[in-house]
Amino acid sequence: MIVSYDGTRYAGWQVQPHHTTIQGELERVLHRLTGEKGRVQCSGRTDAGVHARGQVVHFDLGVPAVEKKLVLGFNALLEKDIRVLSLRKAPPTFHARFGVTGKEYRYFVWNGEVLPPFLRNFRTHVRAPLDTAAMNRAARVLTGKHDFAAFSANPNREVDGTIRHLRELKVGRRGREVVIVARGNGFLYKMVRSLAGFLIRVGAGDLDAESAGAILHSKTRTARVPTAEPQGLFLWHVSY
Amino acid sequence: MIVSYDGTRYAGWQVQPHHTTIQGELERVLHRLTGEKGRVQCSGRTDAGVHARGQVVHFDLGVPAVEKKLVLGFNALLEKDIRVLSLRKAPPTFHARFGVTGKEYRYFVWNGEVLPPFLRNFRTHVRAPLDTAAMNRAARVLTGKHDFAAFSANPNREVDGTIRHLRELKVGRRGREVVIVARGNGFLYKMVRSLAGFLIRVGAGDLDAESAGAILHSKTRTARVPTAEPQGLFLWHVSY
Repeated sequence: MIVSYDGTRYAGWQVQPHHTTIQGELERVLHRLTGEKGRVQCSGRTDAGVHARGQVVHFDLGVPAVEKKLVLGFNALLEKDIRVLSLRKAPPTFHARFGVTGKEYRYFVWNGEVLPPFLRNFRTHVRAPLDTAAMNRAARVLTGKHDFAAFSANPNREVDGTIRHLRELKVGRRGREVVIVARGNGFLYKMVRSLAGFLIRVGAGDLDAESAGAILHSKTRTARVPTAEPQGLFLWHVSY
Repeated sequence: MIVSYDGTRYAGWQVQPHHTTIQGELERVLHRLTGEKGRVQCSGRTDAGVHARGQVVHFDLGVPAVEKKLVLGFNALLEKDIRVLSLRKAPPTFHARFGVTGKEYRYFVWNGEVLPPFLRNFRTHVRAPLDTAAMNRAARVLTGKHDFAAFSANPNREVDGTIRHLRELKVGRRGREVVIVARGNGFLYKMVRSLAGFLIRVGAGDLDAESAGAILHSKTRTARVPTAEPQGLFLWHVSY
């Protein structure tokens, strides 16, 4: 299934006791629709307050089901802040997480005096004018295959090491809207929010764009790299 | 002041006991900032769930205040779903309601299979494909100076009669987004939502575009004209 959600009200993707989560909601509705107590797997967890435009999920089903009816059933029983955009039968070898070949995230910043009320849950608000040219200079240094330990929120717990291939990192602006696009084969824990936090500091003039190389090569997470707020982040697209 | 708000959590503009309202919130914060228990007047009330991009409000102030500081103070103390976009001192003759020369409303419809979760509080969801050419034919009949009693939710209580000059009524589409723009010198109670409800029925093929004339001339509100849901409606701009 391709699933879109507004993460504002949720304690992130993963099922947790005493918390409402995206996974928990999908599993609850799957059970009501099919009678099956299956696990719903996603392409990669999202944290509390983070959104998804195109999260990909899969589940095994032991009973027959009509695809179109399942979509309608999910959307009838889910709250309106989680929507199933499409669903199809996958080959038995498909796995939403292990089959990922690429992921795109977008981080949205409102760079103006007043954050429009309609965007308050979907943008990070930065009043200081952001120099997107400087941000792109720093982004170019970070693009490529590197050890991103300095941009993980928890580098010691990364089970697959800290080397990743960041295929694209670029910053665009349309009026007061600044968008950071990050594409890669995989991301460390809170890596996109760490990249965004660093790039915002560069854009605001708190750090030089040229500091990107030294921070990357230090392979050490320090306070120079803050984790940007969750509500600006969208899991945009997943490739297989 | 020009004020923008997400009306989702509010029981409309007007102060009511036991309800949170936009006016109530602005008056509470004005009192905290200035010590004055003044009334905050707007260009025209909005109903529960209706939004404003550019509501205009005024209040009298018996104490000196710095404009820039007042804006910062309002935005610091208001919830993030109400924002003061700008503020300036007005001449003593200015009145936010009585001085209005024109108002623009926009009504937004999401015309697709699945309503994106991020838009759920800001769009009316219509699955049936809308024929915007038919909607514009009906809209042209309604444009101009007419007795709009058939498009008031309460024609018998309109203290200024039911004749209004609808300067513009037009329907646009961009992909799955359909927007109804209504501009005029004033609107009856729930008139824009009634026009939108009627136009949506025309677009969906439930009513002929040519029925617009007969309904208008009947000067009678009937079930043929439903009131469209509040969350699609934005008070867009007010002229003086």
